Amino acid sequence: MVSEHRREIKVDGFELRSGEEIPLTIEFETYGDLDRSRSNAILICHSLTHSSHVAKHDEDDEEGWWTSMVGPGKYIDTEEYFVVCVNVPGSCYGTTGPSSIDPGNGEPYGSDFPEITISDMVRAQKLVIDHLEIDELKSIIGGSIGGQQALEWSKLYPSMVKSIIPIATGARVSPMMLGFGYISQNAIRSDPNWSGGDYYGGNRSPKYGLQIARQIGHLTYLSREGVERKFGREKSQEESDHEFEIESYLRYQGEKFVERFDPNSYLYLTEAMHNFDLSKGYSSDFQAVKEFDGLVYLMSIDSDWHFTVEESEYLAEVYEKTDSLVMHDTIKSPYGHDAFLVENEKLGKKIRLFLEYMFEGEFDSSVN
Amino acid sequence: MVSEHRREIKVDGFELRSGEEIPLTIEFETYGDLDRSRSNAILICHSLTHSSHVAKHDEDDEEGWWTSMVGPGKYIDTEEYFVVCVNVPGSCYGTTGPSSIDPGNGEPYGSDFPEITISDMVRAQKLVIDHLEIDELKSIIGGSIGGQQALEWSKLYPSMVKSIIPIATGARVSPMMLGFGYISQNAIRSDPNWSGGDYYGGNRSPKYGLQIARQIGHLTYLSREGVERKFGREKSQEESDHEFEIESYLRYQGEKFVERFDPNSYLYLTEAMHNFDLSKGYSSDFQAVKEFDGLVYLMSIDSDWHFTVEESEYLAEVYEKTDSLVMHDTIKSPYGHDAFLVENEKLGKKIRLFLEYMFEGEFDSSVN
Repeated sequence: MVSEHRREIKVDGFELRSGEEIPLTIEFETYGDLDRSRSNAILICHSLTHSSHVAKHDEDDEEGWWTSMVGPGKYIDTEEYFVVCVNVPGSCYGTTGPSSIDPGNGEPYGSDFPEITISDMVRAQKLVIDHLEIDELKSIIGGSIGGQQALEWSKLYPSMVKSIIPIATGARVSPMMLGFGYISQNAIRSDPNWSGGDYYGGNRSPKYGLQIARQIGHLTYLSREGVERKFGREKSQEESDHEFEIESYLRYQGEKFVERFDPNSYLYLTEAMHNFDLSKGYSSDFQAVKEFDGLVYLMSIDSDWHFTVEESEYLAEVYEKTDSLVMHDTIKSPYGHDAFLVENEKLGKKIRLFLEYMFEGEFDSSVN
Repeated sequence: MVSEHRREIKVDGFELRSGEEIPLTIEFETYGDLDRSRSNAILICHSLTHSSHVAKHDEDDEEGWWTSMVGPGKYIDTEEYFVVCVNVPGSCYGTTGPSSIDPGNGEPYGSDFPEITISDMVRAQKLVIDHLEIDELKSIIGGSIGGQQALEWSKLYPSMVKSIIPIATGARVSPMMLGFGYISQNAIRSDPNWSGGDYYGGNRSPKYGLQIARQIGHLTYLSREGVERKFGREKSQEESDHEFEIESYLRYQGEKFVERFDPNSYLYLTEAMHNFDLSKGYSSDFQAVKEFDGLVYLMSIDSDWHFTVEESEYLAEVYEKTDSLVMHDTIKSPYGHDAFLVENEKLGKKIRLFLEYMFEGEFDSSVN
């Protein structure tokens, strides 16, 4: 079902950081209304396998990935803010990606699709923000790869952003997670049905490889303590009596995922995540973001080992050298990296208070 | 090259814990000589993908997996001790496993090979010890799955064992590692060349699946800090400039491993490891080992997250309730779980001193 709230813009030639130029359709969704001064916009950056569909637009709409967070009267209140979420290039939910048709030959891009970077994602988002005639974003909120995008915004367009809320992210992916990410990619590329990336059009796709990739990713999103608490060493009652509950859970996660996600998109997006380096083009992370003087509200999760508390701590140190006001808050949760999608109440309350208190004076005068 | 030091015994009908009976060839190697009182024997239990070939038998012999640990004058001194190592059932280095010929039909067992447990491994080792006419083992030393075997010995044959040195192991595999283990197995089973386990005889084997399984396992053997120190986010100079060093390392580990190991063996041995539960058949871990009154020298590694320090700590608590003398020593090392194969000096010194001091009086009278 294509929601009436899904909108798109088309760019004839979008120049990627790699130097390649492609025609780009950028799909996005908006929630709430822009106020008269066009100053109440919040950009939400979706995480790896999500889309621009953050929340329901109305009762009959399908679930969003942050439904309990975004909406009228919710933590990110769409009666107060105009929320924008842009589907990133490389993904498979509307914006141009490897499964899109290459107008050059009328076939899906597949292996011909060019490399995508976090910078490309942010520059595509910027086109949407320009299109909506928004000069300044009240805040940019994102977790994980979405958090990388929030950081990149503060680097590329510092004067357009009043605050960033990077959740469970880091200045670059740690070597350990690069390792797990590589194995995930390897699982897809080793699947004979991947066919070098050109599997579209046939009835075979590297779904087993994608299942394994998802299972690896998923397990790194959980915490040791959380897995212990939720599954222990219990055997599943539903399936074979040889199967542990953690096994049937991972099996289910893998099977469910391949129904909704394109294996090539998984490769392109994880590659973008792995290659992200805040300092790229500069001598240091500080040099990269030193122009930014907005608010930085870093959130980390105590049981997260995908992006650790220490990685947010490090980001706090980097931004503290700028003229920004920096806060770093650690959520206590057994859900690991996943907590940013699960602990909506804990995160939501903090985000709401941050937005209310930090911009109180402005809201009094500009709310519509 | 089959070493002249490799020996074997054959059992017509070995009854497995599953109830199935198979003819079993048990391959083993010995180092040093038994003293007159047959009381200087040490059993070393190899880890997941190793064999009975612990060390070189002479200068021209091929490397063993613990060469710097075992030999004349070394930490486990074969001038003093008679060292035995038995290749476990289910493996692919001589003892009967899934790649062995089923005498029932003259074909490799493949998917017909029965389930193997840690208990079966220990009972096969016991047959070798009986065959060598050894009534009592001075010590049983093993890391990881080898450590599980040392624990199982104290449960099954408490009066035959004077001491156990379980290194980097636990009473049962943690749910988090069950998860990674499951994904590894899944990678092999999802490889179309696995063919349900019956891939022998053709020229196709599930080597890509095994590569991924190995890479997952290998990364869980390293520590976050170790990966950071050794690889960082450096790009490899040798291969594509898109490849991080951790990627080329994991790729190499995967490629090297498939040349020496059978995918089905990997499945059977990891399954045995996952299903091991010290308390099996008893109401608690303590009840399972309460007959044991020998020495327990637990060793853990501070950076190990495959089997954590806490898991050895827990084992110490269990054995402290018995009449055993229990010691728990934690090695400081950045090598994670792998440390038990890498930190030979740190481990070796401690093991040598333990054996020397604890059995000093006896050696004075019984050394040959």
